[in-house]
Amino acid sequence: MLTFIEISAIIVFAVSGLIVAVRKGMDIVGVFTVAFVAAFGGGTLRDVLLDRRPLFWVEHQEYVWLVMALTLVVPPFAKFLGHRWAERVMQTTDALGLGLFAVSGAALGLAADLSLLPVVLMGVITGVCGGVLRDVLCNEIPVVFQDHRPYALCAFAGCWVFVGLETLGLASWLTLLTGTATTTGLRLLVLAGDWRIPPWPPASRQ
Amino acid sequence: MLTFIEISAIIVFAVSGLIVAVRKGMDIVGVFTVAFVAAFGGGTLRDVLLDRRPLFWVEHQEYVWLVMALTLVVPPFAKFLGHRWAERVMQTTDALGLGLFAVSGAALGLAADLSLLPVVLMGVITGVCGGVLRDVLCNEIPVVFQDHRPYALCAFAGCWVFVGLETLGLASWLTLLTGTATTTGLRLLVLAGDWRIPPWPPASRQ
Amino acid sequence: MLTFIEISAIIVFAVSGLIVAVRKGMDIVGVFTVAFVAAFGGGTLRDVLLDRRPLFWVEHQEYVWLVMALTLVVPPFAKFLGHRWAERVMQTTDALGLGLFAVSGAALGLAADLSLLPVVLMGVITGVCGGVLRDVLCNEIPVVFQDHRPYALCAFAGCWVFVGLETLGLASWLTLLTGTATTTGLRLLVLAGDWRIPPWPPASRQ
Repeated sequence: MLTFIEISAIIVFAVSGLIVAVRKGMDIVGVFTVAFVAAFGGGTLRDVLLDRRPLFWVEHQEYVWLVMALTLVVPPFAKFLGHRWAERVMQTTDALGLGLFAVSGAALGLAADLSLLPVVLMGVITGVCGGVLRDVLCNEIPVVFQDHRPYALCAFAGCWVFVGLETLGLASWLTLLTGTATTTGLRLLVLAGDWRIPPWPPASRQ
Repeated sequence: MLTFIEISAIIVFAVSGLIVAVRKGMDIVGVFTVAFVAAFGGGTLRDVLLDRRPLFWVEHQEYVWLVMALTLVVPPFAKFLGHRWAERVMQTTDALGLGLFAVSGAALGLAADLSLLPVVLMGVITGVCGGVLRDVLCNEIPVVFQDHRPYALCAFAGCWVFVGLETLGLASWLTLLTGTATTTGLRLLVLAGDWRIPPWPPASRQ
Repeated sequence: MLTFIEISAIIVFAVSGLIVAVRKGMDIVGVFTVAFVAAFGGGTLRDVLLDRRPLFWVEHQEYVWLVMALTLVVPPFAKFLGHRWAERVMQTTDALGLGLFAVSGAALGLAADLSLLPVVLMGVITGVCGGVLRDVLCNEIPVVFQDHRPYALCAFAGCWVFVGLETLGLASWLTLLTGTATTTGLRLLVLAGDWRIPPWPPASRQ
């Protein structure tokens, strides 16, 4: 089950990279690289910051092959990914992936004995920074910094729930599940209700 | 005293990030992230390059809370930061922070037994790369690459003074103080005299 | 001989950075930094991902001095580097450097006991990511993602040849030489024949 969500999340994260890269008119090298960074960038940055090795994609080369296969197969159909139903499926899977990645990142931070705020930040970095690096490579301001529909904030809240339950000494499966459900649930609520936050401060855009 | 300068420098570096992010119309996630990267990016990059852990902000989570508080409090007043006196205070504190960060970065390089030029580069990276990463995240060419009022060069000179005095075997407090004073003093002279360097080569801008 | 190719490659990679930075009207700090990142960025990223220390440029500070000297001497003559013959010399040396850097990066991945695809990726990262970081710092979409004349693909192919011959148990000098020759030869063929690949998918540019 977890592996299934993990694979689905990697696919969705990679496809988010494919879409941006295709829009920029990149060749196959660019499309693969941006997809790779979108899928594995957050976890890689977390592992570098925590000094953990081997990196996720080094240990699981099958996932890199998967991203290569996606790079070959998906782009010709990229236009269909704009359809309403495809977008819904992708956003839902992405919300699941965000929850899974963020809380598992926080769990690794906790295992490395960090204090609480850095633990939460490691979680958010894991869930969000793949998208940030994707946008930097595509020469865009990261969407997550100005999308105005909370994304990183959902991961932030979910990781605090996870960390809070952990300090209460609850069982791992319960804390992981609740943290992930909080993140994913919040994100789905944001999408369903089209919740928005303004720029900060509200009247700042020039 | 050192802690006081350190906190002031982190505040000023973070505020420099807040200002750029607010100007770009980012939401609170973007504003915090850019401020965080501006404050801690240089030291984090140095620690990754030197393979030092724990990272500064992992060990001192109170400073991350500080940047969060600044993110909540400062942006509504961002327009006042353009005032002449606010700019003066910020530039002076920034010059102090540049000196402190650069020379302490060089000291860590020296402690890691690097040869002299890499030691100096570690110092410059510590002082300057927070701003570089801030600008990359905001999709701008880093100011420090084309500001034309020497900034990195002041850190470069100050770190050489520090390294030179260290090789002469002087006491740490003296080498650290002189290196920091050189960096900060040069930067204040640059600001006071509005010293400028041309593009390189002088007639290159297209 | 190897050292000679290495130095030539570092010079050419650094000069590629100088040219882009000069075009952007940067000052001497920006020109040096971009040249430095273009020359050493790929190897540094690989070493951080593999957790190897000391970094190449930390161990060989003479190469950093070399890039500093180039920063002082080359920019006034940058316009001559657009000449047909200068471009030919640079492209040929760059192809040699790509082969040498990529295959030596793959060899380090192999020595770190990675599985085959990550080994090949480490090679490509070493050869290509200096240019990627150079372009990100200059606020451009990396050329290698949309140049449409295969570059990273040559390194990819050459690293597979190297890895394939290694798994057959051939002597190191033979596998290194064949891998490098494949990469460099393919790149020279691409340049000689002006081979191009379309965007992916072919009709994607908006």
